[in-house]
Amino acid sequence: MKHLISPLDLSVSELEDILRLADDILSDKKKYSDICHGKKLATLFYEPSTRTRLSFEAAMLNLGGSVLGFSSADSSSAAKGESVADTIRVISSYADICAMRHPKEGAPFVASTYSSIPVINAGDGGHNHPTQTLTDLFTISKLKGRLDNLKIGFCGDLKFGRTVHSLINAMVRYENIHFVLISPDELKIPAYLREEVLDANHISYEEVKNLEAVLPDLDLLYMTRVQKERFFNEEDYIRLKDSFILDAKKMSLAKEDMLVLHPLPRVNEIATEVDTDKRAVYFKQAELGVYVRMALIMKLLEVA
Amino acid sequence: MKHLISPLDLSVSELEDILRLADDILSDKKKYSDICHGKKLATLFYEPSTRTRLSFEAAMLNLGGSVLGFSSADSSSAAKGESVADTIRVISSYADICAMRHPKEGAPFVASTYSSIPVINAGDGGHNHPTQTLTDLFTISKLKGRLDNLKIGFCGDLKFGRTVHSLINAMVRYENIHFVLISPDELKIPAYLREEVLDANHISYEEVKNLEAVLPDLDLLYMTRVQKERFFNEEDYIRLKDSFILDAKKMSLAKEDMLVLHPLPRVNEIATEVDTDKRAVYFKQAELGVYVRMALIMKLLEVA
Amino acid sequence: MKHLISPLDLSVSELEDILRLADDILSDKKKYSDICHGKKLATLFYEPSTRTRLSFEAAMLNLGGSVLGFSSADSSSAAKGESVADTIRVISSYADICAMRHPKEGAPFVASTYSSIPVINAGDGGHNHPTQTLTDLFTISKLKGRLDNLKIGFCGDLKFGRTVHSLINAMVRYENIHFVLISPDELKIPAYLREEVLDANHISYEEVKNLEAVLPDLDLLYMTRVQKERFFNEEDYIRLKDSFILDAKKMSLAKEDMLVLHPLPRVNEIATEVDTDKRAVYFKQAELGVYVRMALIMKLLEVA
Repeated sequence: MKHLISPLDLSVSELEDILRLADDILSDKKKYSDICHGKKLATLFYEPSTRTRLSFEAAMLNLGGSVLGFSSADSSSAAKGESVADTIRVISSYADICAMRHPKEGAPFVASTYSSIPVINAGDGGHNHPTQTLTDLFTISKLKGRLDNLKIGFCGDLKFGRTVHSLINAMVRYENIHFVLISPDELKIPAYLREEVLDANHISYEEVKNLEAVLPDLDLLYMTRVQKERFFNEEDYIRLKDSFILDAKKMSLAKEDMLVLHPLPRVNEIATEVDTDKRAVYFKQAELGVYVRMALIMKLLEVA
Repeated sequence: MKHLISPLDLSVSELEDILRLADDILSDKKKYSDICHGKKLATLFYEPSTRTRLSFEAAMLNLGGSVLGFSSADSSSAAKGESVADTIRVISSYADICAMRHPKEGAPFVASTYSSIPVINAGDGGHNHPTQTLTDLFTISKLKGRLDNLKIGFCGDLKFGRTVHSLINAMVRYENIHFVLISPDELKIPAYLREEVLDANHISYEEVKNLEAVLPDLDLLYMTRVQKERFFNEEDYIRLKDSFILDAKKMSLAKEDMLVLHPLPRVNEIATEVDTDKRAVYFKQAELGVYVRMALIMKLLEVA
Repeated sequence: MKHLISPLDLSVSELEDILRLADDILSDKKKYSDICHGKKLATLFYEPSTRTRLSFEAAMLNLGGSVLGFSSADSSSAAKGESVADTIRVISSYADICAMRHPKEGAPFVASTYSSIPVINAGDGGHNHPTQTLTDLFTISKLKGRLDNLKIGFCGDLKFGRTVHSLINAMVRYENIHFVLISPDELKIPAYLREEVLDANHISYEEVKNLEAVLPDLDLLYMTRVQKERFFNEEDYIRLKDSFILDAKKMSLAKEDMLVLHPLPRVNEIATEVDTDKRAVYFKQAELGVYVRMALIMKLLEVA
């Protein structure tokens, strides 16, 4: 393992290794607070993303390393027409590891083929966002105690939501997983995912349009944003959106230990009244994301 | 004390504590150069402000801590519609303390109610800018040797200048302060400040339109920018502006030990010929701002 | 030596000192990894430049120092009308050394006259970019083993390319240098350089329009970008550009030990097939730029 471009670059056992390390870091932060002293992380964000960028930066700083980079394409050489291949070859002599977000699918992969330092894909278009998947897996593993034997609801925009696709891809590798795919017709998961991933692997799943009906059965509910722009017309949006908004009333239907996850930012798909529910773990999830990134950086830098 | 949102969040004695600490840091920088090792400051600037942001960053770096953040709203999740409440809950797991500038009045206060780390208001619209006030107070205290028994002139835009309002609010808590409020009619201090702060506390003050006439009596002159946009018409601006520009000739009327302060940036309200006058302390003031921010960070992180 | 504004601010012997130090750093990075602990570099980039900014930041971090600054003018106080003179006086109390890029020629020089910390010109308009020249000289010295007795080709836009002008200015100080100036008529070196630098110093040079013809004789080839906008019309550009594009076929005409340099970013003036040729050292050049900046920072901070 040299780069992390897709969540599936990691075998189940490499992944377990990272989650175990993240857990150890969480239990003893001091032990790791200087382990990357003298190492530099470059954050190359061709597309802004505060949360992801700052999570990486916090991770590197927590390890005693330092950070350099840019937070949008205008302040980069991309504006002068430089290729990602050239940029990464230069950055390779400025930093020890790099996290790249790019609007073009595949750009971090191309970078990795020219790079002499580990490249972490921090999101490439609608394609992959592997450290979000690691964050989701760590959250489930840590707060549920397992990654198998789970009934997982995905709710909202399942068509365009790359975090959903990645997490489905990652979860099918565990035993006895059942997916409940909750979305309006317009936003169902793409055919390739249904056919090549779920059907091909004989994964148990159902597609439904109503959150309330399925809530009582779920072990986990993974919420995503439903964007108005995804609908053909305003009326459809207004008619449908309430079915996919999680509020206290709907939460009262769920199990005592059902967890609510969300990749954030949240807009209005989870009512703020849910935030105080102990089953709402989306802010905890963001916190755990720092630790799993620390573990990943350590693995890729081979200091672990 | 957990957050600093308004200058008046600090009692006179808490304030004295901070100024004393700032003074001690100034006298022995080495002693404090590692005291925040391993701590992280998040600078959340939804509105650009180089001076304030870099002053905070310099302060944290001087204490051996590190810094992460963003310098404008476009490179933040605000663009995706995330609330300040959600952002600060996430940032709470990335950093140990945060400085927030926001164009909306009250945003840092809202953030503080959701935050699990100390929030410092680094300016919210036309409202508050408490660390500028701390800087002003430290400058006066350090260079005048006292915060009481002062005749203080405020000159320029007294209507919109939040630094003026804050400093007036802070100074009325000291003995024997007399304010000379020097501005065109259009830019006099707001009624609430005159009535609820000055009159209600029986503070001695006068409102005048001519800087030269009052200069000989002042112990301090706090200059602010007069922006052209504040005037109804160009002629008024041109007719009035010279009365409120400080130059060497006007300085010759002032006391030997009168100090000139300015929150900066300065445009043309102080002629550059004044810069070499030893009574012009506005650049010193910017320098002292770093030390008072160091003291504040230490207090809020409880390392002092 | 207090500031570095023009490449010629350094005498030949000061320059040698810096190159020697850069070489020593390269041979023992550990030895210098903490030498600027507690020192801060301010990167004041009024114009974006990822490569140069990150090279400076990597340099300072490699020395154990820290970094603050801004990467474009909109996030700076310049937007509020502050002069460079005022900005640098404030930054002088925030940082120990500063690197400034500014679209206006002479801005870093003006800054240096008001600054109490060393100012490094990181590029001012089409004027100077002295650390690029240091990088070029270090690359030549390190990889060729000498700075004298060289036949150096400059190819592409010799009219507007400031890196070319600076390097010519720097190289005329060494013995037995011969320049081959390869460009279309429209992009020949400016008259002042031909007359006041080359002719006045009796430097041997030739101006040609064809790269292939002269390639076999060169010890070094310094490539630059030919921008379409520099031509009066599209046809001229299309007719001419191929003559100034370096590819594997042209490389086959060159000496075994001829080096190809380029200040980067490269667009299409060097075909990517050349990248694997061991004589193509432009990425190595970018790497060496970090070390020469480390040496420069140490010299200016007087820690060397």
